[in-house]
Amino acid sequence: MQRYFVEQIKQEQFLITGDDAKHISRVMRMESGDSIICLSEREGAYLCQLLEVSSDEVSAKPMEAIDLKTELPVHVTIAQGLPKGDKLDYIVQKGTELGASRFIPMQTSRAIVKWDEKKSRKKIERLQKIAKEAAEQSYRAKVPVVENSVSFKGLIEQSKQFDQILVAYEEVAKQHETSQLANVLQTLENEHSILVVIGPEGGLSEDEVCQLEQVGAKICGLGPRILRTETASLYVLAALSYQLELLR
Amino acid sequence: MQRYFVEQIKQEQFLITGDDAKHISRVMRMESGDSIICLSEREGAYLCQLLEVSSDEVSAKPMEAIDLKTELPVHVTIAQGLPKGDKLDYIVQKGTELGASRFIPMQTSRAIVKWDEKKSRKKIERLQKIAKEAAEQSYRAKVPVVENSVSFKGLIEQSKQFDQILVAYEEVAKQHETSQLANVLQTLENEHSILVVIGPEGGLSEDEVCQLEQVGAKICGLGPRILRTETASLYVLAALSYQLELLR
Repeated sequence: MQRYFVEQIKQEQFLITGDDAKHISRVMRMESGDSIICLSEREGAYLCQLLEVSSDEVSAKPMEAIDLKTELPVHVTIAQGLPKGDKLDYIVQKGTELGASRFIPMQTSRAIVKWDEKKSRKKIERLQKIAKEAAEQSYRAKVPVVENSVSFKGLIEQSKQFDQILVAYEEVAKQHETSQLANVLQTLENEHSILVVIGPEGGLSEDEVCQLEQVGAKICGLGPRILRTETASLYVLAALSYQLELLR
Repeated sequence: MQRYFVEQIKQEQFLITGDDAKHISRVMRMESGDSIICLSEREGAYLCQLLEVSSDEVSAKPMEAIDLKTELPVHVTIAQGLPKGDKLDYIVQKGTELGASRFIPMQTSRAIVKWDEKKSRKKIERLQKIAKEAAEQSYRAKVPVVENSVSFKGLIEQSKQFDQILVAYEEVAKQHETSQLANVLQTLENEHSILVVIGPEGGLSEDEVCQLEQVGAKICGLGPRILRTETASLYVLAALSYQLELLR
């Protein structure tokens, strides 16, 4: 059944507007009486019946609450060094499917890509839309947040708020570091918050890795093969899901 | 250092031609005396010195053997229901980074995409090139093979040659099946061959899943979130790497 994240689900009836109203009326061609699933951060998930449908406004009524158990037991934030091209679209879409709860685009010393203020605002909007659509399609209960881009220094300042910090570093992968990631994932407890730091194509600098170690980050290899920047976070998220949702 | 898969590495000297010769001479602008790493299925990996460089032919000499330990301990074949657009490019590129050894494009009942003879040959060529480049970039010791597309019936006939068959099936994921994948991965032994069957966007039909069960396939959920067809094989490969290369 079609799923939509909405601002608020009110008991008697509530309104769906904007792109979602267009999608319900024009793309899905639904009519009053049809059913959809609506999700709201505050009220949770409900099976809803459509009351009135027009292309700019849809009214709906919640019929019954749905118990969604699709969120990872931990809160994963991906800090991604700015990659080339549209790779960040892909990282946000796949990372959302795989359960990430936050994305932080990060300016690092070796990144070729730079974002200016204007570019940044537009990109974040676009990425947030990608996250919402991927969250609906993958049955997530929450839409991950795409933060404004931060400097590396800004990331270090934020790092204290996390229970664990993991850094994917290809230099240790080349030296066959294979124990760190598993060690950390096996010690995680429910509701822990994890920051996963991934460098851009050029990788993180030694100095950046040192600064992360100084705030308690664990430096991990992600197996013996060298992964592209857009693949690293997906590996970590899949490993997290396997360890916490399937192995447990 | 730049890596190239070559036909054969001969003791005294050997030739590199075609796209790789162009890449060495024009893109990398290397000269005689420069070093590259050459890999061959039969001879393995060698640090090599360039002797003569021209845009259509490069001669090189092996200096010392390199011991590459970058292959998964098991042989994973991904049978992928034909997806829309360029998703298969992406599945082959990422699957190669993550250690797959074979890809089989598969015609299934619910697939919208159909390949004709001519289209198929072109696509396989293109996918094989993507696999070679991804294998070089990710430090693989082998280039995964991209097979010609098969019918579902053809896949069932091939299925007997595998030690394990895993099927990612979203219907069991929706029913919170969470133990099967971990059960299978924990029983794998080195050199085992595993067939991973992934449906197209429309998924596999119940009948197709039944036929796979009859040849001994294990039906797995990949966590509680619903993954797109192009994400499912990456989840399985990352979980395999985590279980066999990091947890062990």
